[in-house]
Amino acid sequence: MVATYEKTALNTGNRLRNRVHYDKDLIHGIIDETPILHVAFNPADPSTEPFPAVLPMLGCIGSFPAGGQTEEEEEATIYLHGYVSARLMKYPSSSEDVVGSPVTISASILDGLVLSLTPFHNSCNYRSAVVFGYASIVTDETEKLWALELLTENIIKGRWEGSRVPPNKTEMTSTSVLKVRIQSASAKVRTGGPSEDRKDLKDGELRERTWTGVVPAWLHWGTPIPAGENRAREVPGYIEDWVRGENEKGEEGAKRAVEKE
Amino acid sequence: MVATYEKTALNTGNRLRNRVHYDKDLIHGIIDETPILHVAFNPADPSTEPFPAVLPMLGCIGSFPAGGQTEEEEEATIYLHGYVSARLMKYPSSSEDVVGSPVTISASILDGLVLSLTPFHNSCNYRSAVVFGYASIVTDETEKLWALELLTENIIKGRWEGSRVPPNKTEMTSTSVLKVRIQSASAKVRTGGPSEDRKDLKDGELRERTWTGVVPAWLHWGTPIPAGENRAREVPGYIEDWVRGENEKGEEGAKRAVEKE
Repeated sequence: MVATYEKTALNTGNRLRNRVHYDKDLIHGIIDETPILHVAFNPADPSTEPFPAVLPMLGCIGSFPAGGQTEEEEEATIYLHGYVSARLMKYPSSSEDVVGSPVTISASILDGLVLSLTPFHNSCNYRSAVVFGYASIVTDETEKLWALELLTENIIKGRWEGSRVPPNKTEMTSTSVLKVRIQSASAKVRTGGPSEDRKDLKDGELRERTWTGVVPAWLHWGTPIPAGENRAREVPGYIEDWVRGENEKGEEGAKRAVEKE
Repeated sequence: MVATYEKTALNTGNRLRNRVHYDKDLIHGIIDETPILHVAFNPADPSTEPFPAVLPMLGCIGSFPAGGQTEEEEEATIYLHGYVSARLMKYPSSSEDVVGSPVTISASILDGLVLSLTPFHNSCNYRSAVVFGYASIVTDETEKLWALELLTENIIKGRWEGSRVPPNKTEMTSTSVLKVRIQSASAKVRTGGPSEDRKDLKDGELRERTWTGVVPAWLHWGTPIPAGENRAREVPGYIEDWVRGENEKGEEGAKRAVEKE
């Protein structure tokens, strides 16, 4: 059975229902793959400051094995790293039962541009996730160190051990990690080729002069550029493997999205 | 003189000030280059529904030349295309002086992964924009058609004329375009190589075994994949030029970001 987030008024849309998904693995995968997440939270006083605040942050899914449970038994949460705005943490939670500030985390990955016979049917192949949850600062030192390793390894596997660890006391103190307990979540996914108007498909002249199809797109990692201070003789294997692996995965995913309907 | 957005409590941060910018061209460029924007708006009743809502949408900067002004004289606005949630449009503006629903639009572009001697100094090169404004549905038919062409051409130059236009009456009626009047905006930009701890730089063994530098990253467009229904013999020049141009621009930008401090 596929584990899913419960459908509620919060995470369900009214249109293009077939694009909406609640599958946890799908949603977690989008969060882990997106390099920059957007963390939105409410203004302190909507009557004077009507706009939600948004911070770009790094983050990934994680289940800290606390309280005798294994990682698999723990509920998945999102760990965030980046500038923790004082504005973000000053919002109390909406009820006394929940700990943390309410946040909405969004992540979108473009898989391709879908070109049809007419602009009206142009579209994008994409995977987008929106997660609602309660953010709090990780205070437990063991969990914080665990989360920092998780965040580093989620970006580039092998880097934690491949560099100077653990962080020293000053570094630990000046780094904040947020943990977001997930309340609800959903994903929107678009795959396939263009859909067309029946009338346009009957127009032979239009079809001959108008190329239709998909231009696949993915995040490409280039050749690593050494820093001026770099003294390592060569790029380590785990970085080369990671660059090659990510590029292959990106290309394959974008092309596979065209096939899926 | 560089045109900038005014610094107010809304768009200023307290940390890493040197990364924050108010330059209009920079902010507009990030919005135009980002394929999927995140549009956040307030929950209707924060006491029962504490999370901001977020929709992924396509969008770009535009200045519709109305009221006898030229495009250059008009204030820049953001046009958005995508599913216009009823939830989004039901929020009244915060005051009677402004028309539209308050939204926060965020856009982030990753330019590279910055690897230092220790995870604490790892970072990303990126360009991120957050724009606050008031969204309303474009009701003027001339402006709507103008905006649809602008949105199409912003994604792929040449496509509007290269396909069946104008949209017919049914298409125009079933398409919504949002216009966002910009109230305030800012950008965060990180460029350059890794910064290091002085102590780590003195550790010869660490420096020899730990590669440091930047892995540049950009959105790469692959070879166009024709639809099953495609009857055009070859991929048109404007699509090939666009694919090549975007890939070159992406690669150059990501590499240039490493040089800039």
